[in-house]
Amino acid sequence: MLHVIPLGGLGEIGLNAMVIACRGEMLLIDCGLMFPPIGTLGVDIILPDFRYLRQNASLLKGILLTHGHEDHVGALPFLLNEVPVPVYGTRFTLGLVRHRLHELGVDADLREIEPRNPFPVGAHFKVEATRVTHTVPDAVGYVVHTPEGPVIHTGDFKLDPDPIDGLRTDLERWGELGEQGVLCLLSDSTNSERTHETGSERLVEQTFERLFHDVRGRIVVSMFASHLHRIHHVLDLARKLERKVVTMGRSLIRNIEMARELGFLPSVTDGLFVPLEDAASLPPERLLVLATGSQAEPRAGLSQLAAGDGPLRLGPGDLVVLSARAIPGNERAVSGLIDQLLWRGARVVYPDLEPGVHVSGHASQPQQRRVLDLIRPKNFVPIHGELHHLHRHLATAKESGLSPEQLLLAQDGDLLVFEEGRGRFSGSVPTGRIYQDRFGQGVVTPDILQERTRIAETGILVAVLVIERASLSLLAGPQLSGQGLNLDEQVLLPRVAEDARAFFLEMSPQLRGDDARVREELAKAVRRAFKLYTSKRPVVVPMVLKV
Amino acid sequence: MLHVIPLGGLGEIGLNAMVIACRGEMLLIDCGLMFPPIGTLGVDIILPDFRYLRQNASLLKGILLTHGHEDHVGALPFLLNEVPVPVYGTRFTLGLVRHRLHELGVDADLREIEPRNPFPVGAHFKVEATRVTHTVPDAVGYVVHTPEGPVIHTGDFKLDPDPIDGLRTDLERWGELGEQGVLCLLSDSTNSERTHETGSERLVEQTFERLFHDVRGRIVVSMFASHLHRIHHVLDLARKLERKVVTMGRSLIRNIEMARELGFLPSVTDGLFVPLEDAASLPPERLLVLATGSQAEPRAGLSQLAAGDGPLRLGPGDLVVLSARAIPGNERAVSGLIDQLLWRGARVVYPDLEPGVHVSGHASQPQQRRVLDLIRPKNFVPIHGELHHLHRHLATAKESGLSPEQLLLAQDGDLLVFEEGRGRFSGSVPTGRIYQDRFGQGVVTPDILQERTRIAETGILVAVLVIERASLSLLAGPQLSGQGLNLDEQVLLPRVAEDARAFFLEMSPQLRGDDARVREELAKAVRRAFKLYTSKRPVVVPMVLKV
Repeated sequence: MLHVIPLGGLGEIGLNAMVIACRGEMLLIDCGLMFPPIGTLGVDIILPDFRYLRQNASLLKGILLTHGHEDHVGALPFLLNEVPVPVYGTRFTLGLVRHRLHELGVDADLREIEPRNPFPVGAHFKVEATRVTHTVPDAVGYVVHTPEGPVIHTGDFKLDPDPIDGLRTDLERWGELGEQGVLCLLSDSTNSERTHETGSERLVEQTFERLFHDVRGRIVVSMFASHLHRIHHVLDLARKLERKVVTMGRSLIRNIEMARELGFLPSVTDGLFVPLEDAASLPPERLLVLATGSQAEPRAGLSQLAAGDGPLRLGPGDLVVLSARAIPGNERAVSGLIDQLLWRGARVVYPDLEPGVHVSGHASQPQQRRVLDLIRPKNFVPIHGELHHLHRHLATAKESGLSPEQLLLAQDGDLLVFEEGRGRFSGSVPTGRIYQDRFGQGVVTPDILQERTRIAETGILVAVLVIERASLSLLAGPQLSGQGLNLDEQVLLPRVAEDARAFFLEMSPQLRGDDARVREELAKAVRRAFKLYTSKRPVVVPMVLKV
Repeated sequence: MLHVIPLGGLGEIGLNAMVIACRGEMLLIDCGLMFPPIGTLGVDIILPDFRYLRQNASLLKGILLTHGHEDHVGALPFLLNEVPVPVYGTRFTLGLVRHRLHELGVDADLREIEPRNPFPVGAHFKVEATRVTHTVPDAVGYVVHTPEGPVIHTGDFKLDPDPIDGLRTDLERWGELGEQGVLCLLSDSTNSERTHETGSERLVEQTFERLFHDVRGRIVVSMFASHLHRIHHVLDLARKLERKVVTMGRSLIRNIEMARELGFLPSVTDGLFVPLEDAASLPPERLLVLATGSQAEPRAGLSQLAAGDGPLRLGPGDLVVLSARAIPGNERAVSGLIDQLLWRGARVVYPDLEPGVHVSGHASQPQQRRVLDLIRPKNFVPIHGELHHLHRHLATAKESGLSPEQLLLAQDGDLLVFEEGRGRFSGSVPTGRIYQDRFGQGVVTPDILQERTRIAETGILVAVLVIERASLSLLAGPQLSGQGLNLDEQVLLPRVAEDARAFFLEMSPQLRGDDARVREELAKAVRRAFKLYTSKRPVVVPMVLKV
């Protein structure tokens, strides 16, 4: 009997974490985080609730990483802090992870693995990585050979006939396994709604070559800092065009450094780069800037250039390429960034204007179908997506000829059981989302978020009263202090304080002795007085001090 | 000499407001608002800064409305409050406006006009409305005949060869004017980046007919409440399919009522509708629900259905159609809504899955080109769009053969001067954005927004100290109260208060007499004490009371 238990990633983009368990042993594939939507105040990261893994810590034999993106590895330091187990991944993935673990002071047993090179995890799993093409180097999926049969986990993948690094998704191996019989396929659903084939990275290469060719000014390219294939290609182009390269953005600088150390940027030499300080003195046609900030992150390289901060000033003749799509929720900010760059006089090229400046890293509907047709698994579980992505991927599997009992639409926390080649649902395990700041500190609950939102929307009004302990007479106050109030409201405060004063004088001596009651009445009085002048209802914080 | 002065809408989607001025007289075309991005805390609407119109109130002779969408008419009540002038618009547009003015208690001189029927505004303008097709009935553009020549303002328009109401964009009239010579074309840029022709509303009609045909359960359709063409068609389909209609959403109910009164829904009878309370008792295959909430607005009809609130419970067999695209910034919320509906078991169809359930209301690149080729204006100013939309529209005009001196890329506040057939820039007028709540009350400044964001992200910590006035000795405190702190931080407060106490005892008597200084030192001490335990830095509000 085999268990497959998604702890995250089936119902959202991010939080990817999949448990596979058999005969008292577990392994976990990926350990990702999620970035909160705009407006989740003071929350920097969202982690999966790992209660289930903590409760079963002794059974967990290892963590397999598919690739180094935050939505697949970002929660790892926080889990390892509580459940230290070996972590398996390819060289580049471990390179990215090592840095982050170091930053957070977490020790780990990192074990480098290679595609098509099987290794045991625990006593009952034989694991084998399978090369896949994605937007970060050295990405893999996994085949977990279990006593019930092989399970294929695709990781995030695309089908690119001619990837920059020549490393194609290993369809051959998936095909072989398909012929031998695959118990269950867990496959990436991100692009399940897209009906056009996801294009090759070569398209971006060609578009860049065409765009860069006759630029007389500076060239600025912004992309995700982990997209080393594309970075590699831009660096090669810079060399050919005899442009020096400035890198803006800490993650970009670190990733290029690491990639070079690990041998992922063979053609790149030190002489190619110049520091930002020297960039302004170079002739514009001799400069190429690689910058983070394609999502309009406030402090990233591209935002600095747009704001005109720093030594480099963009202007007419310069070309800026946004080589990434806006992540859902960032559209408005990215639009604003484009406008700022245009306002400086630069030419700005972005996917809506020139689709070839970016291609996705995920297989689309017809390509997902091809993988299903190739493997023909006994059971299929769509993974990595919001519910509507999973639904659409399931429909594709149905179109490929799988029967309803082979299709398992699981969500986070569902416990799937596989026995004698068939899968079924069997209850659930605890799961959820933990909201934290970027250090993984300070749990924020939905109640706290609601309190923060109320404060932020209406402002806050602190009312303080000082009472003589013995006589219970009013010594001072109410004194009011407002934060986040609008201009009309701020000028009201002295009047509101005056109006609110009467309540205490009207309270009977017994009631005045009841602190909670005094606070309550103070808040009421302030709210009432405030309401006389305005329709807004700020949060009132009553404080009573006795001396 | 003619002035064209955009006060809003050239640099953003929304705030549309265009001044045309000549010989000491002005008219304003549209008077729109904008909805703030998510995270603009406590701000419900953004209005154009109308300082320039207030300063020139006596010169303003009238306001022309192109159509009834909020980004074209939403700021009208606030402007009329200060500058009461006649308002011109078509019947349906004025119907929408009248309601809103009434709600806010604003009187207005509303004057109904008809396309191709010229009327004077002031002594020097002859104005003529031109029929355009858009997503709300009775939309028009304007031709303003001025002493310097005719100016064409397209309003928001699309080119639909076969619109539902049969009323096509009046290309014939634009063509005539083009032959006679048009001084300046002001044309809608919203879809300037889309290279595919914007489709006909008939596509949606056909898609609905196909989708609705074999549904055995309930049919729910969600769209913008002002899209009366589409609503009309859905109501007709309901009649044909012998389904009763429930309307959810106040704006939808109001608009249908008004449209019927004004004769815009001729085939609709009272018998078609049933109240929501009776809907649950109807057989599912006899029911169609029209609901607001396609943007996942929290209290709208569709959100209620998704949450399972109210008498209607959706489930397997039911079809939900989201007949609108997510507005930039709403994507994540709309995705979540779709997932909630899927989770209830309903089939959910939305534009990403089935493009035919929605078409845009704006002409795209090739159609914008067609209008440029037809009119061949002496000068061209792209309007209605963010800077990148205007840029791309300008490029299209260039491709259509206009020369650089005919292309005027104006932004909000620019003052354009036209003389002897040619346009040029001549400085600027004051403009900007005013942030307000939905009643148009309470001006919120960028500083206040920043304060609110800081409070909301980190929480707030109030510290109160009570001092004896005569002796300047400490009577009570520091007492701390936290709002929006995280769980770890809340438990720290007693310790922080204890640690922070020492600062006052260490202050010299002279300093203790300086209130501002005491407050400052109190805040510092609390921050310092807090920092010993956590890396967060909440906003500290120090208060000192003397008794």
